Amino acid sequence: MVERKGLDEELSAYGKRIRQTIEAFLERKKHELESANWLGKDLTERLRRFSTGGKLIRGSLILLTHDMLSSKLEDDFSAAGLQSAGCEAVAAAYELIHSFLLIHDDIMDRDRFRRGMPSIYFQYQTIIEENSRGNGLHEAEGLGICAGDVAFLLALELLSTAAAGVYPEKTMKILLLWSRELSRVGVAQMQDVFFSTWQKEASESDIISLYRFKTARYTFSVPFATGSILAGSEAHITENLLDLGEHYGMIYQLVDDKIGLFGEAEKIGKPVGTDLQEKKQTLLHHYLYHLATAEQKQNISKILRKDRITGQDIVYIRSTAIKNGTVQRVEEAILEMKKKAEEMLKDLPVTQEYRRILGDMLEYSIKRER
Amino acid sequence: MVERKGLDEELSAYGKRIRQTIEAFLERKKHELESANWLGKDLTERLRRFSTGGKLIRGSLILLTHDMLSSKLEDDFSAAGLQSAGCEAVAAAYELIHSFLLIHDDIMDRDRFRRGMPSIYFQYQTIIEENSRGNGLHEAEGLGICAGDVAFLLALELLSTAAAGVYPEKTMKILLLWSRELSRVGVAQMQDVFFSTWQKEASESDIISLYRFKTARYTFSVPFATGSILAGSEAHITENLLDLGEHYGMIYQLVDDKIGLFGEAEKIGKPVGTDLQEKKQTLLHHYLYHLATAEQKQNISKILRKDRITGQDIVYIRSTAIKNGTVQRVEEAILEMKKKAEEMLKDLPVTQEYRRILGDMLEYSIKRER
Repeated sequence: MVERKGLDEELSAYGKRIRQTIEAFLERKKHELESANWLGKDLTERLRRFSTGGKLIRGSLILLTHDMLSSKLEDDFSAAGLQSAGCEAVAAAYELIHSFLLIHDDIMDRDRFRRGMPSIYFQYQTIIEENSRGNGLHEAEGLGICAGDVAFLLALELLSTAAAGVYPEKTMKILLLWSRELSRVGVAQMQDVFFSTWQKEASESDIISLYRFKTARYTFSVPFATGSILAGSEAHITENLLDLGEHYGMIYQLVDDKIGLFGEAEKIGKPVGTDLQEKKQTLLHHYLYHLATAEQKQNISKILRKDRITGQDIVYIRSTAIKNGTVQRVEEAILEMKKKAEEMLKDLPVTQEYRRILGDMLEYSIKRER
Repeated sequence: MVERKGLDEELSAYGKRIRQTIEAFLERKKHELESANWLGKDLTERLRRFSTGGKLIRGSLILLTHDMLSSKLEDDFSAAGLQSAGCEAVAAAYELIHSFLLIHDDIMDRDRFRRGMPSIYFQYQTIIEENSRGNGLHEAEGLGICAGDVAFLLALELLSTAAAGVYPEKTMKILLLWSRELSRVGVAQMQDVFFSTWQKEASESDIISLYRFKTARYTFSVPFATGSILAGSEAHITENLLDLGEHYGMIYQLVDDKIGLFGEAEKIGKPVGTDLQEKKQTLLHHYLYHLATAEQKQNISKILRKDRITGQDIVYIRSTAIKNGTVQRVEEAILEMKKKAEEMLKDLPVTQEYRRILGDMLEYSIKRER
């Protein structure tokens, strides 16, 4: 058998280019923002560490999709060079937007750690605690709100400078795509906050809409469509990719739900049952409850009311999820979406090589254990 | 004496067009965001009321500057029509960005009222209090953060749709201008939060930098420059307008400081001495303290340490500010900047009519009592 380059390796080559673009841009901005005040300079340094600390999957998908759809361009070396710098700027901009959303999300969820480092607002809280009276949570949150806003503004600056390589028409189209899609991400996040506050049970369609906008379109559809716009594809191809991305994203989210309950702590990097502990309204939890017998319902409710969920509780939930058909239901949904995605893949105007990569991504996102 | 149209009247005609643009756009988005969830629809309604509740000065300055610099275009009626719709979209977008910043600022300052209505996060807090346990402040702030983010995203969508009338090259230039300038506004806001937390005294240059970026450039320079880009002016004119705007803005802010201490409560719409009560680090307070005698310093410090500042305290501060030269110092700074601004006005390539309007604005911002 011929050895094939792994998917991870392909994506990590893109990741490296994006990381370099972010670093060079923030290095330049560091000096510019220093002219406003020292907090500006300090922030660019924090943003550099934070935004290059992730896997840069979304930006990498942009570059992959661009390359996949625009092999023609490679003939003209100098145009390809300019184009490529522009594409990297766009991909880096989307990653900075991702950082912006994470920075704000961490404030709302009071998550103190992210990407193996303190979250941005918590970094500020630590500084305030050391230098001032009180715990400074409110002020730290204020600084975190601003930091997220500035990350977004830096992303927009990067997007607008990309225009040198990829034409203003394209960057304007991308701005339209991003602003439309991200306002729905924002509204989906509001729904998330809302459900946690009202402690109301979300309906199946509420959860699906959350998965669609907050995860699937944001993580897969938008990067696919952005790459497609950069490659100058026809509108119907961009539309198809938005649709394909939704399927990839829904599968990704459903597998996440499954791993959250059945995964191994060492692999997923957090205790098993964290979703249960946090009373997350996942589709799996929804099915688990609605497919349960009266007795199972009683037991599940009792477990969910606990402050601390034990290993024994998790064993019970796992076996119930298998017995009452929850796991089967989730797996069927995954397989159905996989089938549809594979159909869509056949129609994409790309080489066999890229079709294979996209197929691998699909397989990987289903089989992954973390 | 010939009766002249008042400045207010001129600007309010622009305000009306911007208000209509915002309303039509948010009406359209209402239906689109409803597809995500009901909170999306609900938010467009709140944003409509909030963003049309202000004086729309910034957007009006964009349209004024555009008209002032592009009288040539008026010959071609149909092109002017498209151009004009595009300009209104850009002006409306900047007003939505202003709303975004106010929504986030109100969270940081815990301001419950704005523009004669409850601030956005406080609107959510009221709903949560009515429907749920606890005061819901944290969740309301979370919803407010998202609401601000969505306001910004809607602004960007409006900006990118404006491209139909004003060419993508121009909208890209505007995006670059806005993102660069606003990231400094964000960093200036961080400085503001920082000073309030550390309770450190800001230096004169710290305060001037805050005035420059958070008020002057944001409120005057950027609208002037945006209008200039829309009119297709040469780069050096846009640069000059950025500079002119800084002078207008610094004057505006210094007059604000003065009114805050010497104004009449009924005219300024808040109790006299609110700046003192809030221990705001204004340039006037800075001079007041640094020009004070040892005895005055002691008295001022005593007043600033009070939880409630009395009418008598204000009388003392007022007379001290007059006696020790603070007022003179502020007024000299205003006059010096006015002189420079008038010099700049002479070089602007605009008709006498528009030069008069800009001159009136300058006079008005110095003589205003509220």
